[in-house]
Amino acid sequence: MSSLQNSETSLAPVRVGIVGIGTVGGGTLKLLTENAAEIERRLGRALQITRLGARRDPKGIDISGYAVERDPMAVARATDVDILVETIGGTTVARELVLLALQHGKHVVTANKALIAEHGEELLAAAAEQKVSLVFEASVAGGIPIIRALREGLAANSIDWLAGIINGTSNYILSAMQQESKAFAPTLKEAQDLGYAEADPTFDVEGIDAAHKLCILASCAFGVPLDFQALSIEGISNITLEDIQYADELGYTIKHLGIAKRTDAGIDLRVHPTLVPKANLLASVNGVMNSVLVQGNAVGPTFYTGAGAGSLPTASSVVGDIIEVARGFGETERNSTPSLGFTELKPQALCSAEESTSSFYLRMTLTDEIGALAGITSTLAEFGISVEAMLQKEPRMADGEALATLIVLTHEVSKGAVDKALAKIKDMAVVRSDVTVMRMEQFQS
Amino acid sequence: MSSLQNSETSLAPVRVGIVGIGTVGGGTLKLLTENAAEIERRLGRALQITRLGARRDPKGIDISGYAVERDPMAVARATDVDILVETIGGTTVARELVLLALQHGKHVVTANKALIAEHGEELLAAAAEQKVSLVFEASVAGGIPIIRALREGLAANSIDWLAGIINGTSNYILSAMQQESKAFAPTLKEAQDLGYAEADPTFDVEGIDAAHKLCILASCAFGVPLDFQALSIEGISNITLEDIQYADELGYTIKHLGIAKRTDAGIDLRVHPTLVPKANLLASVNGVMNSVLVQGNAVGPTFYTGAGAGSLPTASSVVGDIIEVARGFGETERNSTPSLGFTELKPQALCSAEESTSSFYLRMTLTDEIGALAGITSTLAEFGISVEAMLQKEPRMADGEALATLIVLTHEVSKGAVDKALAKIKDMAVVRSDVTVMRMEQFQS
Repeated sequence: MSSLQNSETSLAPVRVGIVGIGTVGGGTLKLLTENAAEIERRLGRALQITRLGARRDPKGIDISGYAVERDPMAVARATDVDILVETIGGTTVARELVLLALQHGKHVVTANKALIAEHGEELLAAAAEQKVSLVFEASVAGGIPIIRALREGLAANSIDWLAGIINGTSNYILSAMQQESKAFAPTLKEAQDLGYAEADPTFDVEGIDAAHKLCILASCAFGVPLDFQALSIEGISNITLEDIQYADELGYTIKHLGIAKRTDAGIDLRVHPTLVPKANLLASVNGVMNSVLVQGNAVGPTFYTGAGAGSLPTASSVVGDIIEVARGFGETERNSTPSLGFTELKPQALCSAEESTSSFYLRMTLTDEIGALAGITSTLAEFGISVEAMLQKEPRMADGEALATLIVLTHEVSKGAVDKALAKIKDMAVVRSDVTVMRMEQFQS
Repeated sequence: MSSLQNSETSLAPVRVGIVGIGTVGGGTLKLLTENAAEIERRLGRALQITRLGARRDPKGIDISGYAVERDPMAVARATDVDILVETIGGTTVARELVLLALQHGKHVVTANKALIAEHGEELLAAAAEQKVSLVFEASVAGGIPIIRALREGLAANSIDWLAGIINGTSNYILSAMQQESKAFAPTLKEAQDLGYAEADPTFDVEGIDAAHKLCILASCAFGVPLDFQALSIEGISNITLEDIQYADELGYTIKHLGIAKRTDAGIDLRVHPTLVPKANLLASVNGVMNSVLVQGNAVGPTFYTGAGAGSLPTASSVVGDIIEVARGFGETERNSTPSLGFTELKPQALCSAEESTSSFYLRMTLTDEIGALAGITSTLAEFGISVEAMLQKEPRMADGEALATLIVLTHEVSKGAVDKALAKIKDMAVVRSDVTVMRMEQFQS
């Protein structure tokens, strides 16, 4: 046996308190127990669960062998806890709990994306004040160590952009709509029945959850303050099967992406359904898996995939963070890597929604008459929008009138220009439907 | 501006010496210069190149502004170097240089896989002795932060197995053979002309380079000592276009993989061409890209892809390591994460080549006569080998005799059983060719 580090014999165990024994907290408890031997070999000392916080006994998880506090705040104040794990979720009690724990000099590990995206600035300041760690790998993309990749592995890079499938529910629904040729509503119902979507699916299908995660990724990528309000957010509830099939016909798959991009107009942060070329790695990620594609100025594109949710995959990241914090215990008692990868977060110019550029997919219904198409293309040209591809479907009869569906794929252009062109196009007599607008990304390096 | 860490104002720069200003050293120099501002924001202090080691002036890289030592050992002894970057390659001078630098209390960052795989034990012991860091993210899979993923992000897991495309040259050649329906020799020539293969391609095409990398990955995954001799190694030089096409017909792509697997018979470490189901993520990685698929017992499968070589991608990992080491500078002056992810490396039972199991692809030529096929299948059965699929091609005439190609895909079985069955099969009168044997992996979670 060759000892490579920690020649000191038998360091005292690092003491862990877990508050919230649900899916993630229960997984954390299980993992700390079942993988204890391997973890001790990696850390060079044991992790000991000294205290649990649970308002009531959890279903299906035996916590009888532990010191259980009914008041979560008691764990934050306990003198026998070095690292507090917050897995209760939400942003009210969780915020109080984390602040209290930090004020009591405890390191905090959390999987709570909403908490970090919305209150991260306050909490990180409290951690810095107390010289303790606040880490949250599990808050983005479950078991994929993507925060660590940005913060450490790619730390030498200036990040050009990143794009991720970071909401498993949305990806499950879009994949199932495509594979089973089903509409949104019944597919959501099926996802709910299978436990892949919540009874109230708003957070997932309206893009809020993905936006929380993108907010955190953007800070890790660019060192900008956590600013949830800065994001432009669109979910998948308006995606039709028709659009999925047209996109397919044109060589694209529709994915719900979080995108953070450095542009001349500032940092562009947006969450929305996106047409992705089928050859791109992101297009082949189906079901509840998460993936992030990161373009660094030195490394080029790198791609990370894994389980984005679930008890043990998320616990894998929580416990990875516990190990990281515990590895820092020594003379300084503090992990030396900044939580977001930058020692100082610096506000940078943000790109407005109007200035934000990409290619676009436009779908509309036109009367099948001479000049209809020419009217559309000349209006697009008027606003500087050039067309990359166009698809006109066979006309169909409706109310005695021939109507045809037109799909236009544009070259890269600002959203502002598209909005202006569409305002004019919508008023044209030949246009007989709303215009569906979706972003397209080519992900060129 | 919110300061999250290092409230001390303007820490002194961390001083870096780079020895070997070739592809990787030159990229490191470029990256440290061009991304200096972003790196300083991440680190909280500057990285300063205080000394270069180059026996002669490099072509195409201007080093006139630096203090250049012609004797590499002078950089290892220099008092103004905190971190020495070794990018000269090879295992003789590089070993001496790294040992000398460690003995002089310098932290060492290297991209040298052969050095770590073959002398890592000795070098890590020297680093532990001196309480300095020796890190080598760039030694495996270029710009992909895979060592960090195993060592930190997935530290909570017991790793079940990993499989990686970790030699870009081999992957380029196999991809090109498949895409252009070309034989091995002309494809190698083309790769050499394009700079994707060396003039002497032995290290790449015979699997040595991949084996060096797998050796390092295995230590990070299982905490076993670095033991290059323990690996079973096979390259791609015997792969025929015929096998690539038969594999394709059966739904598989041939990839050159490094595989490390925890099995009941011990840890199985092998590098060889492998039939991979086309639906697996590894099958879609083409050209010089590298990818690693890791199965952890908590996280399930995770997948990492990026540039496996090249000046800036490799430098991305070198500089990432410099930042990691520099982040540890403080009261302890030492990064607290063990280089291989375990505080003690512990020998574990290794699986012998005979005990190693997988599915197999067998190809042979038979005389087209009654009973020929039955003779083969009954011999396979005799050694406990069950057949998953079989493909017999139309017979062709050769020397007045009808000969048919037979492809057999087996279920999982030990290599020992296959070897024994083949020893008998090769002697059968109906068998008119050598038997081509290749591994197949299904990568079930």
